[in-house]
This record gives sequence, C-alpha cells and structure tokens, in this order.
Amino acid sequence: MTSPQSNSPGTRPLGVAAIGYAFMGQAHSNAWRSVANHFDVPAFEQKVLVGRDAGAVAAAAAKYGWSESATDWREVIAREDIDIIDICAPGWLHAEIATAALAAGKHVLVEKPLANSMAESVSMVAAAQAAREIGVRSMVGFNYRRIPALALARKLIADGELGTVRQVRASYLQDWLADPESPMTWRLRKETAGSGALGDIASHAVDQVQHLLGDTVIAASGKLHTFTTERPGPDGPEPVTVDDAAWATLEMAGGAVASVDVSRVALGQKNALRVEVYGTNGALTFNLENPNELFYLNAREPIEVQGFRRILVTEPVHPYISGWWPQGHVLGWEHSFTHQIRDFLLNIADGTDPSPSFEEGLGVQQVLAAIEDSSAAGGATVTLAEPAISTTRTS
Amino acid sequence: MTSPQSNSPGTRPLGVAAIGYAFMGQAHSNAWRSVANHFDVPAFEQKVLVGRDAGAVAAAAAKYGWSESATDWREVIAREDIDIIDICAPGWLHAEIATAALAAGKHVLVEKPLANSMAESVSMVAAAQAAREIGVRSMVGFNYRRIPALALARKLIADGELGTVRQVRASYLQDWLADPESPMTWRLRKETAGSGALGDIASHAVDQVQHLLGDTVIAASGKLHTFTTERPGPDGPEPVTVDDAAWATLEMAGGAVASVDVSRVALGQKNALRVEVYGTNGALTFNLENPNELFYLNAREPIEVQGFRRILVTEPVHPYISGWWPQGHVLGWEHSFTHQIRDFLLNIADGTDPSPSFEEGLGVQQVLAAIEDSSAAGGATVTLAEPAISTTRTS
Amino acid sequence: MTSPQSNSPGTRPLGVAAIGYAFMGQAHSNAWRSVANHFDVPAFEQKVLVGRDAGAVAAAAAKYGWSESATDWREVIAREDIDIIDICAPGWLHAEIATAALAAGKHVLVEKPLANSMAESVSMVAAAQAAREIGVRSMVGFNYRRIPALALARKLIADGELGTVRQVRASYLQDWLADPESPMTWRLRKETAGSGALGDIASHAVDQVQHLLGDTVIAASGKLHTFTTERPGPDGPEPVTVDDAAWATLEMAGGAVASVDVSRVALGQKNALRVEVYGTNGALTFNLENPNELFYLNAREPIEVQGFRRILVTEPVHPYISGWWPQGHVLGWEHSFTHQIRDFLLNIADGTDPSPSFEEGLGVQQVLAAIEDSSAAGGATVTLAEPAISTTRTS
Amino acid sequence: MTSPQSNSPGTRPLGVAAIGYAFMGQAHSNAWRSVANHFDVPAFEQKVLVGRDAGAVAAAAAKYGWSESATDWREVIAREDIDIIDICAPGWLHAEIATAALAAGKHVLVEKPLANSMAESVSMVAAAQAAREIGVRSMVGFNYRRIPALALARKLIADGELGTVRQVRASYLQDWLADPESPMTWRLRKETAGSGALGDIASHAVDQVQHLLGDTVIAASGKLHTFTTERPGPDGPEPVTVDDAAWATLEMAGGAVASVDVSRVALGQKNALRVEVYGTNGALTFNLENPNELFYLNAREPIEVQGFRRILVTEPVHPYISGWWPQGHVLGWEHSFTHQIRDFLLNIADGTDPSPSFEEGLGVQQVLAAIEDSSAAGGATVTLAEPAISTTRTS
Repeated sequence: MTSPQSNSPGTRPLGVAAIGYAFMGQAHSNAWRSVANHFDVPAFEQKVLVGRDAGAVAAAAAKYGWSESATDWREVIAREDIDIIDICAPGWLHAEIATAALAAGKHVLVEKPLANSMAESVSMVAAAQAAREIGVRSMVGFNYRRIPALALARKLIADGELGTVRQVRASYLQDWLADPESPMTWRLRKETAGSGALGDIASHAVDQVQHLLGDTVIAASGKLHTFTTERPGPDGPEPVTVDDAAWATLEMAGGAVASVDVSRVALGQKNALRVEVYGTNGALTFNLENPNELFYLNAREPIEVQGFRRILVTEPVHPYISGWWPQGHVLGWEHSFTHQIRDFLLNIADGTDPSPSFEEGLGVQQVLAAIEDSSAAGGATVTLAEPAISTTRTS
Repeated sequence: MTSPQSNSPGTRPLGVAAIGYAFMGQAHSNAWRSVANHFDVPAFEQKVLVGRDAGAVAAAAAKYGWSESATDWREVIAREDIDIIDICAPGWLHAEIATAALAAGKHVLVEKPLANSMAESVSMVAAAQAAREIGVRSMVGFNYRRIPALALARKLIADGELGTVRQVRASYLQDWLADPESPMTWRLRKETAGSGALGDIASHAVDQVQHLLGDTVIAASGKLHTFTTERPGPDGPEPVTVDDAAWATLEMAGGAVASVDVSRVALGQKNALRVEVYGTNGALTFNLENPNELFYLNAREPIEVQGFRRILVTEPVHPYISGWWPQGHVLGWEHSFTHQIRDFLLNIADGTDPSPSFEEGLGVQQVLAAIEDSSAAGGATVTLAEPAISTTRTS
Repeated sequence: MTSPQSNSPGTRPLGVAAIGYAFMGQAHSNAWRSVANHFDVPAFEQKVLVGRDAGAVAAAAAKYGWSESATDWREVIAREDIDIIDICAPGWLHAEIATAALAAGKHVLVEKPLANSMAESVSMVAAAQAAREIGVRSMVGFNYRRIPALALARKLIADGELGTVRQVRASYLQDWLADPESPMTWRLRKETAGSGALGDIASHAVDQVQHLLGDTVIAASGKLHTFTTERPGPDGPEPVTVDDAAWATLEMAGGAVASVDVSRVALGQKNALRVEVYGTNGALTFNLENPNELFYLNAREPIEVQGFRRILVTEPVHPYISGWWPQGHVLGWEHSFTHQIRDFLLNIADGTDPSPSFEEGLGVQQVLAAIEDSSAAGGATVTLAEPAISTTRTS
Repeated sequence: MTSPQSNSPGTRPLGVAAIGYAFMGQAHSNAWRSVANHFDVPAFEQKVLVGRDAGAVAAAAAKYGWSESATDWREVIAREDIDIIDICAPGWLHAEIATAALAAGKHVLVEKPLANSMAESVSMVAAAQAAREIGVRSMVGFNYRRIPALALARKLIADGELGTVRQVRASYLQDWLADPESPMTWRLRKETAGSGALGDIASHAVDQVQHLLGDTVIAASGKLHTFTTERPGPDGPEPVTVDDAAWATLEMAGGAVASVDVSRVALGQKNALRVEVYGTNGALTFNLENPNELFYLNAREPIEVQGFRRILVTEPVHPYISGWWPQGHVLGWEHSFTHQIRDFLLNIADGTDPSPSFEEGLGVQQVLAAIEDSSAAGGATVTLAEPAISTTRTS
C-alpha cells in the first residue's frame, strides 16, 4: 500500500488518475486542468485517464491534458505513482472501483450519487472508514455545495441569519426527456441507472436540503412517475423502467419540512435546481440557471425596505471568489468542480477529511430509498432508520 | 319568489345586496362600483350592505357606495327589490345564507371557499341545482380565474398550444403568520375557519389546477403542518388548530400530475400564487405578485430561439383588457373581482350559468378534504369518489 | 367669483366637472369614482362631464358616473355649483381653459404636460399665482409621483438613504408607433401636439428626475429624431412633424447628471418608464411595467450581503397603501390618478397648495424646451435661465 | 523574419508568448490553458510569460501554465520558437509592442482598447496592414463578441430577424470607483490611461453597437464627467484627470441612432454591460451580469403571445456551445477569451484574417475620440471622418 503521506514537502507531486471521459469525465478533467490557475493547491500531475475504448480514451486524454491513457482501471489503481483516483464512471461501477482504490491506499473522489444501491453504498462507507484510519481520504462529488452562491447560503444559515428554518422548497427541473421520441438509453433502465430523475438530480436537491440546514431527513413521503413508459430502441419500443419525475415531502430532525420535486420533462427548464429556504428571521432563494445570484431577505430590517435582494456572488469576500476575477465577472457551472478539487486537494494536504464524505453520500441514498419506498406504498410516510453513521455536518 | 327575469329591457335595474364589509366586502364593493366604468353590463344598483355592527356597516356602506345598510341578512333576502346576494361573510355562514338566498330566488355570488365543510358544500350544491331549474344563477368566487394572464393561460391550454399537459406546479406562499407572536384569531381555529392555509389559499391553487387544465383531480397525497402551535390570545396562549402550510401531490383524470404547496409562513413571499404548467409542446408560468405577466414557452419553435417569453397581458386582444387602458398600463389585483362581477352580470342577463359553479366549488372542497384525509393517514394516497356532479369545464 | 371656502363643514359637497372623455378622461373619471372607497376625502359630487360631441359625452358621462354632460366648457365654468375643473382635454386647450377656470375661482387640475408652448405655460403660471392669492388651488397631473413605489423612492432619497445622488438614468420606452404603417393623427403634428415623445413621455421622465432629487435641471444637451417621417393619412401620405424619440443629458443644480431617453418605437416595450438613481450610499431602480416594485441597494451594509432588493410596495407603511388591500395585493397603473385626486382634495380642504404646482409644470416645460433647442443646435448644451419662479420641492 | 506558415502539418506546435500577468494576463492565460479542452485548434505551446518583475512573473508563469518567464519582451519577440504574441500589457505599451511583434512576423492578439491615442492606433493599423500582406495575423480583443448570447444576437440581426434596426441602447455600468476614498491609480491619470470609463468600458459598448449592427458610427454627441476630482495618493490628494462616466448619442451610417452611457460609480452595478436593440420586426436585450441569457422579441408573431423571451444560450446549436456542456449548464465570463483564442488560432491555421481587426479597433477609437471632442465642445455633434480604412464587418 502506498503512503498518501508521500506528498510531503520535497517529494513528488500527487499523481492523479481519472476513470471515465464522458460528460462528467470532461467536467472533472477541466477542473483538474484549471484549479492551479486560480488556487494555491498541493502540486499534482494529471497522469492517466482511464476508459474502455482505447482509441477514444487516448484522444480524450490528449484533449483534456492527461499524460497517458489506459483501459484497465485495476492496473492504474495498482500503480505506485498514482495517489488519487477520480471516479467519473457510471454509477454501477462506483462501488467496485472505489472499494478497490481505497484498499490500495488511494484517495478517492467519486461522482454522485454514491452508488446505485443501498448495499453498494454501505460497502463503500465501510471501505472509506477503514481507509480513513490510515489517512486515506474520500469524497463524494456533490459539486453544487461549491457553487459560491450556495456556499454563501450555507454560511448565512449557519451564522443564524435566517433564524430557525421552517421550510425548504427544493426542485430540480430539466427537459431533456420531454420529447417522447427521444431514444432509449442505459439511463432509462433500472438495472443500469438505479433510478431516473430521483438518483440523478433529486440526489443533488436532497443533499442541498441536508447540507444547507446542517440537518438530516428523518421521514419521507414520496411519489415517482414515468410519463413516457416506452421509448424507441434499436429493435423497436423498449420499456422505460425508471422515473421521469419525483415528488417528496421530507421531515427534518430539527423540525423543518422540506419539499423536493424533480423532473426531466419540465419543458423549457434546462437545469433549474431551485432552492428556497424560509426561516423565522430571513429567507433565501437560488436558481442554478443563474448560479452567481443568491436572493436574500432579512426580516429584521424595517418592513418599509424589506425585500429579496439579489446578491451577485462575485465579491472577494464571497466563498472561493478571491481566486477568480474582479467583482461582477461571473463564473460558470463548471467551476463547482474546480472548487471541489481545490478543497479535496487541501484536505489531502492538511490530513483532514473531505466533506461530503461517503457517509453523507449514504445519507442521501437513504433518503432517496425512503422516497422510493414511500412511492411504492402509495405515499405513506417512511421513517428513516437512525443513521448508523453520523452524517452531521462538519462545516 | 321574485323572478330573476324581471330585469328584462324596460324594467328596473338589478338590485344588489352584499353581506360582509371586511377585506372581501371592500374588494367586492370596489368591483361593483367600478365594473360599469369599464364594461357594458346590465343596469344594477348597489342597494344594501349588510353587517352585524350597525354603525360600522353604515359607515362602510357610505364609503363603498351602497345606498343603505342593514344588520339582518334575512330581511334583506326577503326584499322584493333585491335580485342579487353577494356573500362576503366568513365561511361558516356561507351555507346558511346562500341556501336561503337561492330559495328566495336571488342570484348568489359567494366568496371562496364554498363552505367550511363538505356537508355544507353538498347542501349548497343541492340548493344551487334546484334554483338553476328556475333560472336563478349561482357562482363561487374563485376570482383569480379572471386575472387576464390566467384567463389567457387557460385559453392557450384549451387551444392546445401546450400539447398534452404532464405536470403542474402550483404554490401559494404568504408570510403574514411568520411572526410566532402574531396573535390568535378566528382564522386559526378549526371550528370557525375549517382549515388554515389549505382552505384559504390552497383552494385557489387547486381551482387553478383544475380550471387551467379543464380536468379533475382523482387522487391526492398530502401533508398539513402547523409550525406555531400556540399563539397569544387575550387571556394567554391559545392552541392553533389549523395548518400553517400544506403540501399535496395530485393525480389528474387526464394523466397529469400536479403538486400544490401553500404556506402562511414563507417569509418574504407576500401573495405569491405561482403556477407552472408543463406540456408536450409548451409551458407556462405565472406569479400573482406580478399579475399582468404570463410567461410562455413554445417548444415548436426552433430551439435556437426558444425561451420563456414574458407576455405583458395588457393588449386589447387579451381577456378583459378591451375595457381598460392602452397597452402596457397594468391592472391591479382587485380587478379580478371586477371581471368576476362583469361575467356574473352577463350570465344573469343572458340566462346562462356562471362558472365557477357551486359544483366546481364543491369539486375543490373534495380535493381539499382528500388532502386533509391523506395527511391524517400519513400521506397515503386518497382516491376521490367519482364526482356525483359533473364539474367539467364549461368554458 | 365663488368662494372655495364654501366647502366648510355643513355646506354642500364640492362640485366637480371634468373636461375630456378620451383616455385621460376615462382615467380621471375612474379615479373620481373610486377615491372615496379607499380614502377619507372631503365630500364631492361628480357633476358634469364636458366634451364636444353631445351624444358621445352623454354616453361617457353615464358610464363613468357623472350626473350630467355638457358641450360648452365655458358654461360649466360659470356654474355656481362647480368648484373643481379637471382638465383632460388635449394640450392645446389647457391654457385657455385653465386660465378661465382659475379666473372664475375654480380649483384646477390639469393633465400634463402643462401646455404645448412656453408662452402658454407662463400665462398659466401667472393665472395660478393670482388665484392662489385668494385660496384657489391648482395642480398639474404628473400622476406618477403618486405611484407608491415612486413615492417611496422620493422618501428614501429625501431621508438621505442614498447619500449624495450622482447619476440618474431615466427612460420611457413605448412601441405604439413602431409600425410605419400606423396612421397619421393629431398627435404627430407639431401644431396640435407641440412635440412627440418629448412632451408626452419625456415630460414624465423629467418630472421624476427633478421630483425624486428635489433638484432642478440647469443645463441640457439633447437630440430629437423621427424615424418614420411620413405616415398614411386619409388622402395619402402626410409628413410627421414631431419626434419619435428623444435623448438628453441633464445637469442638475446639485451636481448630479441625469440622462433621459424616450421612444415610441422601442418594439416590445409597452409602457416602460424606468428610473435608476445612483448615490454615494445607495441606489434605486424602478420600471412602470411592474409598478408595485422598487429595487433598493443599501451600500452601507456588509458587501457580503449587498444587492438590489425588490421591495413589493404594498405594505401598510408604504405611501398610500393603508387605504388599500393587505400586503402583496398589488395596485394597477390607474391608482396613481386616485392618489392624485385624493391629495388634491385634501389640499383643497386643508387650504394648502398642491404639488406639482403649475410652476413645477413650467419647470418641466423649460427643460423640454432646452432639449429641443439643443437638438436644433446639434446637441450643444443649453443653459436654463434661472427660474423666474421657484420650483423647489414643497413637500 | 520567421514564417508563420511554419505551422503546417508535420511541423512544431505554435509557440505562444503572453506579455502581462495582471487581470487580463490571468484571463488570457486561463483561456490558453483551457481552449484545447473544448475545441479542436491547431497545436500550440504556452511558452513564455513576460513581465517586468522577474520574481512575480516567474510565479505567475508557473501558476498559469507557461513553460518559462521573461522580463524583456523584445528578446521574446525575437525568438524563433515564438509565433504568437498576446499583448495584455497596459494600453500605453500596445503600439510599441504590437508594431515590433508584427514587424518580426509574429501573429498578434492585443487587448482592447487598441491604444491610448489615435496616433498610436493609426500606426498599429499600418503595421497590421503591412504584416497582413505576408500572412501575419492581428486581432484586437473585444472579447464580448464571443459571448455566445451576443454572438447569437449578431446572428439574429444579420439574418434579418429584427428587420431594420432603429435604436440601440448600450450602457456599461460598474461601481468600483463609487467610494470617493478609493485611492488614486494609474488608471485615473490621463497620461497613463488615456481616458477613464470611456476607453475602458465605453470601448466595449461602442464595439458592440457597430458589430451587432454591422454598421459604423458617422456622428457623435457626448459628455464626459468626473464626479470625484481628487483621490488620495501616497502623498496626499491627487487630481483625477479622466472621466468617471460618459454619455453619448451616436448616429449610424444606416440610419439607426444609438445611445451609449458608461459609469464606474453606478453603485450596485457590478459589470452591467447592457445592450438593447430595437428593429422594425423584433428586439433584443442582454446584460453581461447574466451572460448566458439573451432576450428576444419577435414582433411577427400574434400580438396575443408576443413578449421578450429568455433564451438560455446553452444549446448545441448556439455559437461556441457544442464545445462545452449539455444544455442549461452555463458558462462564465472568462470563456469569451477562450472563444477568442479559439477563433484566432483557427484564423492562423486557415490563413484568414481575424475579426475584430486592428482597423475595427481603430474604428472604435475614432468614435471614442469624437465623443471626447464633442464633450469638450459642450455636446455639439462631431462628424466622423470617412474611415480611411474599411471597417465593415467581415462576419
């Protein structure tokens, strides 16, 4: 087992390998390539990009700045010069790769959701906990926590600016499946995708709810629905076995109630993760389609001048912004990944545990499972088991 | 029994009496006073305003343009010169007054919700049906149907511009109970108010869902919650026995799924009835805080130029606008009532039945009852009985 | 000459006559009809509506709530039972009517702009000053001062919340002349209309600039332009002799610089009077298409949470709102007139002088004339003469 | 003189040197580092970063991905392995460096504005024209042309979707000088900065006006103003000799009228380049603070559904987007530079001339000079000389 402590001063840069080069692989690669332009991070090298198709992965590696490409992730994990494994492969591969990488002493960043099943998620948490004992770090990629506006939202809530939070309204609306003739893919089969909008985008919404409030869901009532039940495959219509949309009402341990709804058929909504938080002293709203804006109402001000203010979250005092441009020069979606990698690298350097941890990823999976169970039971509320593993916020 | 046909050409103007002079009484009075300024309606006279406190109602009558005031609504109903009873009294009085007025052959406009209980609602529908047989008209005041932007929304949906509607997201957020020290009132007791946010504002949202789609709810899963369970009364804390907020997922007969959530503690939201409708060909969004705007996306256009357009619903071609100002000169909230009275008067003159009918009001009550039942059952879906009375849209 | 003091307690209600029943006549009539519903004002009666076409004005009088109609304004002015003359006739008639009415001891409200020419404006001011000596009141109808959001804006500026104002950006964009085939009308001839967008809508913008800041324009550079120089008349094309659009830069006595631009061909802008005010401590923005909203930035707050807040100007503490509905129930464009009449009536009752006075109306005309002169001189700055008459703010 | 044709297939990658490592140097470096991640461009190497402070530039080079650093730009220009010079140095150095680099046969990208003076600008155009003869390319960095939303705007206008453009309203508002205690810098001295807001941000606005319309300014009336005339220097107050804000009205050769106004003291506006274009058939609006949105009104649609639509410019069919993320995943400000470098590299590879050319940069300078002259003449209109050099759009 290699020692992650080998990146001490005077030693070689951290060696990084990424597995996967589709949408998420491109996004992570882009973040690895730009992070050091903007932030002081430990030295690292983009060593290997791993994929199944040798030609395609070689081309992607060249394009995205990786020194080499490879097709066998096991070989890459075994390499002495690799310290970090960044898993951008589909969800059904997360558990196997992450468990192996952690066992090999590699720090692991894994895309969300943690895994497609609860069993896999639990196994990953166990692997992460064992690795943590010997200083090996792990993180699950709920990248939206690192959108500066959402990071500011969390700070304001943690600082008590909203008072006691009563209600959260979170939704994530997309429309890429609005066309009923859009073809069948692996993302629409339960075997490969685990679930539909639920795992893909409700996972982000649920993570935000728990993270923003620093609280955990204790009960859920939910509904899943598939509007287009068959889609064209190469040999004719095939059944869609995952949800197009999902709705849930969540009770939080601290007494707040959150609603979450997500859809892939909300025509005209392209990437609308919207969050509204209502407390006793203030409120916040956010929409990922305008990710540099946070709207904040301070109810302690005179009513004459109260209102939701649009904070353009691009000031040096705002989270992550000091590494970027002068005020008013907005950031794009992709830099949530840049910030995620910055923090992951700093955790590795500092010997601290990243957040969101695998436990937090498991916490989200538990909520998604409860929503699915409730839906199967016609909406009846499902109480979440006391989390075996603390997922409380670590700030 | 007087004959409602007595308002034929050459006969006297319709005599109107309104019962109640609080918020809704003022709003209705204002509409009676302004409707003829803007629309060609049958002649009518604002004859009597009825209330319990003789001095206060006399002052209100003088201020709001009523010729007389009275304290006994039964006497007013019995008057020969009164043809229309406009009921703005609290919900617990609706059934008694409406039933008596209809029995006396008076046309009845009753504020929403139809009544506080299902039993009362059913009795009112029976009275309305009997009266209808002899040409007596009845209407329940879901005034937001007459907001020009929402009337346009319904027209676009009915014209097929959205294709098949899949999802509706309706919410109604207010914050007038956000302060936990806000005092106890009759609106917070189940005996007097029936319910809280559910009956008061979810009723509007549910009516919009059914009306916009021309469809009916067949099943509901819901949750009610009270965040502040005690409020200061004159003699110390008193229990709040109605909901502060409610959430529901509704299945429509036509296959769409609607979510509805409402709150009186959503800090910073003042009167935010928001509606989003997603179809296969288009989508619409609306917010009552900017009631002159309708946002519409037409997905049949080239994707290069697709987007939600802000229609400022103030053109002469838009519903109700030809009676008002040139384009761009916006209307206020109160003219939903003006339009309601205009249509009610025209129905009376034409001998046609107004919409929303008492049956439609009952339809909303059935949905609210199902949400309440589901909440009591921990969210389990409640199937609505086949409506005994058709509530299909009459356009 | 009748005594305006005749409306003392115990005497008859004020008798009102309005002259003109087109767009502005309808708007003023509507305000007269609704003002007492919402505000405690001296008793008055809508006695006579005056117009040239006997049949049409009779119909309008009936519709808008006037007891009588008449065709000769001179006769109406001479009536003993008329105390107030509300002039909604076209601009070229303002001077003659207003001067006669004031000479007859009638209180006068005249629509903006004060008059079509400087000479007429000066004569009206002289008449108003003479009348004022004997307690006869006069007011020019810059109604947008009474939009609650703009009234709040002025209050915040007057209270020093913005610090020293440096810049104002005011524009008023409409599009009703965007179509080059839109026909010729009297509004497009210099003889009848005086000017085009300049007098019609720049007058509002200039009044806002001076009123909001409590300051006066001392120099102007401007440009007028006509995009469509011929329009179809009944007998073929006719020349358009007024401006379609105008631009100006204005220097204020207090050191601020204001830009004003207006257009009737800004396609898609329906009634967009937009105002932005930038000071050393804060800033404000407003758009008449959403007249219930004022956006306010307070730069004395921590930069972390600074931003323009959307104040929904519907709270009881906001100007004029206590007469209306609960929070969040928005007002329409037309109630700027209702508030104007309320204040005018209160001025009459209190024996105080209304604002905007004729002098303030003249002040606006001087600025418009300077813009026109500058345009004729190719943009060279025109310095305004020291106002012979103080137009300083009186509130 | 090296031959720029040396980058033919089989030869070495293009060698790039950048001069300057402050704000613009960081932004350009970032673009060089990321462009190949997203676009197929000719091979190139980030060879040298040049700056005056050896230590600081070495650190910057390491951070921003340059292989080497240097302090003498003349030596770098002379190097055989350098093919491209990217000039991010302050404006007073542009002419000297660009002229020398072009003479040495290097392709040159220079930040806007082209230069601080007209004389320098003219000399640069002459150098560019001479170099062009032998295949050496030059470009001035009006990067906002490559914001996808603005590129789409230009396409829609060029395609005739707006009909004949009548009016443009362009403004660029910032607030970084709003505090009168903000200290003196070289940017506030005429000798070093040339001008204030005019050259810095009005240059962008003027370029947009000309570029979007494919038209040129033929006359200008303008005004410059300095609100804070002294600012703290190290040895006490120093005079500010450039403008804080500027206003101009511009006549276009094609008959349109454009207004431009800019400010560095518009409190609360952080980076608000706003553009509104009004034609006979449609209109567009844009704000750089939400750079992924373009608002478009199509007036050929039925008036019932007309309105400004918000196009989220993130679809694969939109300019530049196919290199990026799926729909709805927004880009940041900095990728205007990435797109600029992509196009510059493709021009070099294709042997075509980039746009904006130095001639186009000169065209902007001519307009700025006319505004300044007009301001000095009290706003009198200044007619622009027939451009000696065609600046017509090259698409």
